[in-house]
Amino acid sequence: MNRIGKEFTVEIFGESHGTSLGVIIDGCPAGLPLDSKDFEHDMSRRQSGGKGTTPRKEPDIPEIISGVFNGYATGAPITILFKNTNVRSRDYSFIKKTPRPGHADFTSEKKYNGYQDYRGGGHFSGRLTTGLVAAGVIAKKLIHPVNIHAALTEAGGSTDIENTINNALENQDSVGGIVECKTSALPAGLGEPFFDKFEARLAHIIFAIPAIKGMDIGSGFNAATMKGSDNNDPIISTDGKTETNNAGGLNGGITNGNELSFRVSVKPTSSIGKTQRTINMKTGKMEDLRIKGRHDACIALRIPPVVEAVSAIIIADFMIEAQHISKPLQ
Amino acid sequence: MNRIGKEFTVEIFGESHGTSLGVIIDGCPAGLPLDSKDFEHDMSRRQSGGKGTTPRKEPDIPEIISGVFNGYATGAPITILFKNTNVRSRDYSFIKKTPRPGHADFTSEKKYNGYQDYRGGGHFSGRLTTGLVAAGVIAKKLIHPVNIHAALTEAGGSTDIENTINNALENQDSVGGIVECKTSALPAGLGEPFFDKFEARLAHIIFAIPAIKGMDIGSGFNAATMKGSDNNDPIISTDGKTETNNAGGLNGGITNGNELSFRVSVKPTSSIGKTQRTINMKTGKMEDLRIKGRHDACIALRIPPVVEAVSAIIIADFMIEAQHISKPLQ
Amino acid sequence: MNRIGKEFTVEIFGESHGTSLGVIIDGCPAGLPLDSKDFEHDMSRRQSGGKGTTPRKEPDIPEIISGVFNGYATGAPITILFKNTNVRSRDYSFIKKTPRPGHADFTSEKKYNGYQDYRGGGHFSGRLTTGLVAAGVIAKKLIHPVNIHAALTEAGGSTDIENTINNALENQDSVGGIVECKTSALPAGLGEPFFDKFEARLAHIIFAIPAIKGMDIGSGFNAATMKGSDNNDPIISTDGKTETNNAGGLNGGITNGNELSFRVSVKPTSSIGKTQRTINMKTGKMEDLRIKGRHDACIALRIPPVVEAVSAIIIADFMIEAQHISKPLQ
Amino acid sequence: MNRIGKEFTVEIFGESHGTSLGVIIDGCPAGLPLDSKDFEHDMSRRQSGGKGTTPRKEPDIPEIISGVFNGYATGAPITILFKNTNVRSRDYSFIKKTPRPGHADFTSEKKYNGYQDYRGGGHFSGRLTTGLVAAGVIAKKLIHPVNIHAALTEAGGSTDIENTINNALENQDSVGGIVECKTSALPAGLGEPFFDKFEARLAHIIFAIPAIKGMDIGSGFNAATMKGSDNNDPIISTDGKTETNNAGGLNGGITNGNELSFRVSVKPTSSIGKTQRTINMKTGKMEDLRIKGRHDACIALRIPPVVEAVSAIIIADFMIEAQHISKPLQ
Repeated sequence: MNRIGKEFTVEIFGESHGTSLGVIIDGCPAGLPLDSKDFEHDMSRRQSGGKGTTPRKEPDIPEIISGVFNGYATGAPITILFKNTNVRSRDYSFIKKTPRPGHADFTSEKKYNGYQDYRGGGHFSGRLTTGLVAAGVIAKKLIHPVNIHAALTEAGGSTDIENTINNALENQDSVGGIVECKTSALPAGLGEPFFDKFEARLAHIIFAIPAIKGMDIGSGFNAATMKGSDNNDPIISTDGKTETNNAGGLNGGITNGNELSFRVSVKPTSSIGKTQRTINMKTGKMEDLRIKGRHDACIALRIPPVVEAVSAIIIADFMIEAQHISKPLQ
Repeated sequence: MNRIGKEFTVEIFGESHGTSLGVIIDGCPAGLPLDSKDFEHDMSRRQSGGKGTTPRKEPDIPEIISGVFNGYATGAPITILFKNTNVRSRDYSFIKKTPRPGHADFTSEKKYNGYQDYRGGGHFSGRLTTGLVAAGVIAKKLIHPVNIHAALTEAGGSTDIENTINNALENQDSVGGIVECKTSALPAGLGEPFFDKFEARLAHIIFAIPAIKGMDIGSGFNAATMKGSDNNDPIISTDGKTETNNAGGLNGGITNGNELSFRVSVKPTSSIGKTQRTINMKTGKMEDLRIKGRHDACIALRIPPVVEAVSAIIIADFMIEAQHISKPLQ
Repeated sequence: MNRIGKEFTVEIFGESHGTSLGVIIDGCPAGLPLDSKDFEHDMSRRQSGGKGTTPRKEPDIPEIISGVFNGYATGAPITILFKNTNVRSRDYSFIKKTPRPGHADFTSEKKYNGYQDYRGGGHFSGRLTTGLVAAGVIAKKLIHPVNIHAALTEAGGSTDIENTINNALENQDSVGGIVECKTSALPAGLGEPFFDKFEARLAHIIFAIPAIKGMDIGSGFNAATMKGSDNNDPIISTDGKTETNNAGGLNGGITNGNELSFRVSVKPTSSIGKTQRTINMKTGKMEDLRIKGRHDACIALRIPPVVEAVSAIIIADFMIEAQHISKPLQ
Repeated sequence: MNRIGKEFTVEIFGESHGTSLGVIIDGCPAGLPLDSKDFEHDMSRRQSGGKGTTPRKEPDIPEIISGVFNGYATGAPITILFKNTNVRSRDYSFIKKTPRPGHADFTSEKKYNGYQDYRGGGHFSGRLTTGLVAAGVIAKKLIHPVNIHAALTEAGGSTDIENTINNALENQDSVGGIVECKTSALPAGLGEPFFDKFEARLAHIIFAIPAIKGMDIGSGFNAATMKGSDNNDPIISTDGKTETNNAGGLNGGITNGNELSFRVSVKPTSSIGKTQRTINMKTGKMEDLRIKGRHDACIALRIPPVVEAVSAIIIADFMIEAQHISKPLQ
């Protein structure tokens, strides 16, 4: 399903090469002030244009067609459209013949029996995250003063990110990266045992972002190598503050009032200019494939605002459910 | 919420020190043969008793009180109870005064305003996974011949697991570990864009298991260090088989017919005999805490059947939804 | 699915002739005082024993096995079991051969391909409402001082209910009835457009009660015969009080602060002693059927506490979602 | 929430006086042929223009912006927009001062604390059913050859509908009506005990339609007056055909293969030209209210295609879940 959330829900729709795509936010409490300008900062962070990102540039101007009246959320579903303006008409039928390695070409063909819109990745395109970021803008306003900050900390195994990306560009290749996300001022007590633990819902939406292959929280994969006496965080004050933060802000699936801290692994963009091998579905023989067109050399560069957005969406949902945010806003 | 799933749903209930705990499986297709003996193998794998696990032993004999008739699932909810037989009556009120580091003591107190059942971890106890494993047994039967195998591959950073655990026991400490899970014979085409990608729902239930701090799929965190030309898996046959399996069996959130492969990081058990520091909630001063009682030195030892169970639950849910499993069974 | 609700959820399980049946309430805010005595009044109202009800008597003593600690709801799922003690062992296989008119015998056979537990109606038995009433007891406590009162106002088309039932008993027949339900002190503002209008969710759970064939609200079916100038309720005070109550307490799917008022039609019990005609599934020929055993001559007699219970469940769910009830209770 | 459905889901959004409104259908199996012409028939049946309907005329041309490619559903969400073209700019602020009897003016003000879009009823407008009818068109194609037919059978208590409506128009009043719906060729076995009985989900969506005040199934409210021996439908063939159809096609919450038959009561339009009494929220005194503008004298005239649409939506959802409809379509 293309919807997530319980109280604050987000549904995304559209395709890379359709006329427009967008998002519906249902459950935003009435009374939140909303203006198209609110979206500018995060939309531009997600946009391409910088070195290592695709040359396809989209203005990504949000058109709010429902749920906002006189500058405030009304309580009805908020629908936001984004036009696709920079779509190149070209022949994508090669995708059906020679599925691209690392892409959803083969799996979507299987799942939809050939009916999927395969142009530019269709509904599987990273472009769909436009709507996610827009929903995140609303969520961030709701959860204020909770503060979320995500950043790319390494690419291709190196912290010299610029150099790594230059190398990839030179070789018509791509690189992966690590995005770290830290959230402060999160209230203690969010999370719903057993299956809706905070990290369970968070992981759900994080792994829905295209290209994510791993996530860990606090000491994460290091925790597996540690002793309890090192990994346990001593509690140093009655409001739950801990000396260390190996837990990453979560105990028993519930926020403990410390910083929420997690990392995600972003795989290298599957689309590369370099020649690859794949199967020809008609002949049953392997052949060379060179993908033309416009790609991100390091899609991880554009992931931080998406990680922030989905974090904000989940936090807003938990905070409404836990009645930290009132309906309507007071 | 304590329920997960769309078509094949699992709800768990109970507490560590209540009279019994259990699980309801709703959505199991009518016609599945079910017998208490089916549960023996996995229930015993989850049980304690071996070195490094808690001395609290529970027989964990499933009592099926609904949904099975004449040896077959009826289509109505299947309710399974497990008695708590080896509960020690002792004073747990120290938990409220001096919350244990790494535990849910502080967070559950916050969330439930002191009303939680804090005895032995209450609803947060790892004992709740008993019901998960039982649901997994049913799911495994449904998804046959899909085969899931999870194993502890390292503990405390070492593959000499026995030695590592002996060390932890000697020091009244605990260690974490890595559990790997591999699933074969999974059909291609499972997973529902955008938010119900296969890995999104899988991560949701994996992070609901107590003590899990990380998960990665295929090349996982390594993918962040790789180039696209290395990480992309060449497709070598028209049924989607790939030469390498860096994708871990998933493209675009949909199974591709290759082995599903992922790893989880299990933190060291929070309960350790060693002295720790924590806050005294009444005095506001830090003090020494020594946790008595029965603990697992390496809870990761008991995680593999749980990881298998939750994988099976998610796979069963996807396979029913994708109509790979018929309702009722034919 | 056997679960309903968003914040305050209810799952029922069990069969008429199993060892026990019950209910799980998930989402009850921590802090609600709960005692087995709370259940006595409504459980006894639902019980049989009076004239016109089945001679099968069950003590219906609730066994709370999770979610309550020291006399208060903990916030974890509350599981309540009821033993089936008065089950008669007899041969029910006739149900498969000659499906009873008005029963689920034919439809469940179709749906579950013969695997259903058909003894005494199995999971379709009215006995399943035991769990509903228990959940309703908890909901009523939560929503206090909202007050719900349902009553049988006519049976077999007559308000002389006693006489009507005597007639039915004499003729080994059964009669239907009308149950009216009125709820006072309901806050204005409950209901969630578009699909979760108050009456939409209410109708959902009302029509889940076995034997319900109709429901109307306020002027209901009379509204179809009226003019707007008669049916519109003049608003007479700034808190929304209306002069008349043709709306039954609802405008636009949202409670308006006036009395919630609705009626349901309960069909006559399908099980009657009188000879009926039905098909013999083996011979394909029609034949006479006489149903032995213990029946309710007027099941509508036992519906009022069930209607109250499901109303309370839905109201509790809406009131938690609308933050009229706090989590945990303050 | 503004979404309904489990496998075949429908989300509606928009307001009476916004730029456009619409619907997202998520879960339509890939492979369904879809063309804008498919919508013409039912969209025009829902439109106004005839005697007794509002003079506001909207072309209601569906703009499909996602989920359809090369004339077929792709499996991704189908988004359909409808422009609001005939919106009159006028002053609606009187609604806040003098809430209209029978409308959502008072309740939405309460619920949304004044932030709702109150122009022309906003999100509460009957205009929102445009999206429902569009979703119904898709559902009807999916469930073919299941055939649904709804019709207005009486208005204002009379079967001389034309005369009744003329009277209402002359008196600047409105009238209610009865809509009957009959569905043939529905497979037996649809419906999911306990809470998702066929009639439970059907009633949920029926009562979500604005202006519906009652619903009954088969013998419905008459069943309350009947004896079991009269109301039970003798089964006359091994495929479940019954001699009479007092059950309206449902036993135990499951379709029995006979015609599905139900009635709904539609209240008279709340907006009438005639002078009414209501409260002035500022002065706290009652005063006269005359509603200007364009109204339906008998909204029931436009309800049949909406009832058909929501029936089709629910049936499609059940048929997919019961695997009567394959994913993707074969």
